Amino acid sequence: MKILDIREKTISLADPMRSAAIGFDQMTVSAVAVVTDVARDGQKVVGYGVGSIGRYGQGGLLRERFIPRLLAADPETLIDAAGESLDPFRVFEALMGNEKSGGHGERPGAVGVIDMAIWDAIAKAEDAPLWNLLAEYFNPEPADPRVPVYGSGGHYHPGNGIDGLIDELTSYLDLGYRRVKIKIGAAPLAEDLARVEAALSVVGSGDNLAVDLNGSLTAETADEWLDALAPYGLAWIEEPVDPLDFTLQSSLAARYQGPMASGENLFSLADARNLIRHGGLRPDRDILQFDIALSYGLVEYLRILDMLSGQGWSRRQCIPHAGHLLALHAAAGLGLGGHEAAPDSALIYGGFPDGAAVEGGFVAPPQAPGIGFETKSNLWSILEPLGK
Amino acid sequence: MKILDIREKTISLADPMRSAAIGFDQMTVSAVAVVTDVARDGQKVVGYGVGSIGRYGQGGLLRERFIPRLLAADPETLIDAAGESLDPFRVFEALMGNEKSGGHGERPGAVGVIDMAIWDAIAKAEDAPLWNLLAEYFNPEPADPRVPVYGSGGHYHPGNGIDGLIDELTSYLDLGYRRVKIKIGAAPLAEDLARVEAALSVVGSGDNLAVDLNGSLTAETADEWLDALAPYGLAWIEEPVDPLDFTLQSSLAARYQGPMASGENLFSLADARNLIRHGGLRPDRDILQFDIALSYGLVEYLRILDMLSGQGWSRRQCIPHAGHLLALHAAAGLGLGGHEAAPDSALIYGGFPDGAAVEGGFVAPPQAPGIGFETKSNLWSILEPLGK
Repeated sequence: MKILDIREKTISLADPMRSAAIGFDQMTVSAVAVVTDVARDGQKVVGYGVGSIGRYGQGGLLRERFIPRLLAADPETLIDAAGESLDPFRVFEALMGNEKSGGHGERPGAVGVIDMAIWDAIAKAEDAPLWNLLAEYFNPEPADPRVPVYGSGGHYHPGNGIDGLIDELTSYLDLGYRRVKIKIGAAPLAEDLARVEAALSVVGSGDNLAVDLNGSLTAETADEWLDALAPYGLAWIEEPVDPLDFTLQSSLAARYQGPMASGENLFSLADARNLIRHGGLRPDRDILQFDIALSYGLVEYLRILDMLSGQGWSRRQCIPHAGHLLALHAAAGLGLGGHEAAPDSALIYGGFPDGAAVEGGFVAPPQAPGIGFETKSNLWSILEPLGK
Repeated sequence: MKILDIREKTISLADPMRSAAIGFDQMTVSAVAVVTDVARDGQKVVGYGVGSIGRYGQGGLLRERFIPRLLAADPETLIDAAGESLDPFRVFEALMGNEKSGGHGERPGAVGVIDMAIWDAIAKAEDAPLWNLLAEYFNPEPADPRVPVYGSGGHYHPGNGIDGLIDELTSYLDLGYRRVKIKIGAAPLAEDLARVEAALSVVGSGDNLAVDLNGSLTAETADEWLDALAPYGLAWIEEPVDPLDFTLQSSLAARYQGPMASGENLFSLADARNLIRHGGLRPDRDILQFDIALSYGLVEYLRILDMLSGQGWSRRQCIPHAGHLLALHAAAGLGLGGHEAAPDSALIYGGFPDGAAVEGGFVAPPQAPGIGFETKSNLWSILEPLGK
């Protein structure tokens, strides 16, 4: 397998919703197509990758650094030991040539979409869904394609109050979800507590509700908020403080007994390791949300899982950020703890194939070869022209 | 002062040299010009910014996010309390709107060049060199415009052995330098020790020689290297290991008694704070090299200095990475510990105005208004067309 061409474009994910951290009215992601010389059914195998929401597209980095660098690499240096398929680990080395350590920000997202397209192409060439390959090569346990999934929403929408929140979460339960997550931290505490109680009135028990603070608390405010949330027994409290303030995170974990979650804004093995070393999180309850697509892709994620294992963490504590279709393959194939989903399938970043049903809080990964972007029609209509 | 336009372009810094981490054959930086409505001498004041070497240009981020966002901001929200000048702190807030926390990689470099251009414009409008303004507003001590400077070089060049290294360092001493820094870590230990001894034969004492490992050591190799270097009594050992491996850095600081330096690949207050909290560095001897231009600019750097002060660190322990002309203003105006310089003035990132002389290991900042890019002709010939 040789790379013949790599194309990229920027996709708008613009939406009027807000979290405590940002508005999404200018949000974008990058998409790439990696065209290979392998033919299946008379057509060249093309791998696709698309970014994860929250950190914008990386078109400049892709065009100026990563695509030219990979196209300039000797194809022999990118091939696996059998001399047949692309080796994602060797592709990663080529992409990261002449890149200094540290500073894991936008670069991991640019590398991540290329890494994703490489895995997609490899799995397509083997005519297997990616989660099958991941299970075969990188999971010591038998894979279980029934993945626990939660419905992620409850953003702040202009003009949409408690009634809108209840309607939104009710619709998620109607779709088959049991557990949901809502945004808090952008309103005064009393107002957000009313939103939490409204959400609980829909999902029933605290174990079915997670809340996402998007890093909005500080050393001055965190105790009041956590103490107010504690009685609800929530599934988890997500990113209460700045994701790099490990000392503050650690002090919260000493105070708040329930599960907490973090990691969606740490984009490398080195940063993930620092969270584990210095963040005071507890392997018996806390949730790690490193976003595979935004963190250099599966090659780096497999290294993160190895690091976690060495530090006494089970893969079951990992639920990647943002419900990317790639993350569903990783959850099923690698045995992660679950999958996040934006339940509105009209969203192009909603993470299921068309027609996939959530049943009792579980969902199955696609059976199509590769990642299966082809099975999600609104996303595929954007990606397909890139591969032509 | 209002912003009328912002232009950007990417500048090549391609060079065949290598460090232990990367080659520089494709290296670029971004440059920006911020055109204001303030007139001086019949011409609009234009502020310029240019990136620092090592992490590539950020044209995509500038064009897609930061320039449009700043141009879309209400000018009233960018003005200082007196209603006259741009306020760099408010500009920073506008630039970082809808940006999530964490992930400080390329974004800090994009914001950093705009921040730099804003400060350049403000100082030009006041007809003062930037270091004067910094001294007046942000330095509790009297400013001393005699800045200790060291000559940074000793890279690995193709076909250039010990003799070439000796010639290079001798030329630095001829220019007035006393202290120099060379790259090590890309050759076997014995070969690099020969390079260190050759360098010592030029500069005389270990206190006049620093070595930069560019993060090339690991837990397995670090002890052998540090023990071998210890007898030389070097000025400092720079970035011995991965810049985010604070635990390993801390263990080295417990073993190696001489000064160490780190920070050039940490690009935010949050990351700098983690180095201080978890890296085991010693305020009485170690050197902090956060690169102002690559780390969101002066607004963030002032916050880093505040953090350091609160942690018992003197500004004198700060010598910013890479010898940017902006860093020379910061060193003189803010009272930092010194300045790095690429002594070859033919390099466009060499950090002095034309004709500026190093005397006895010290250099003075420019007296031209603003940062004074206009006084370095090879760089100015690239920047000037942006402001037309």
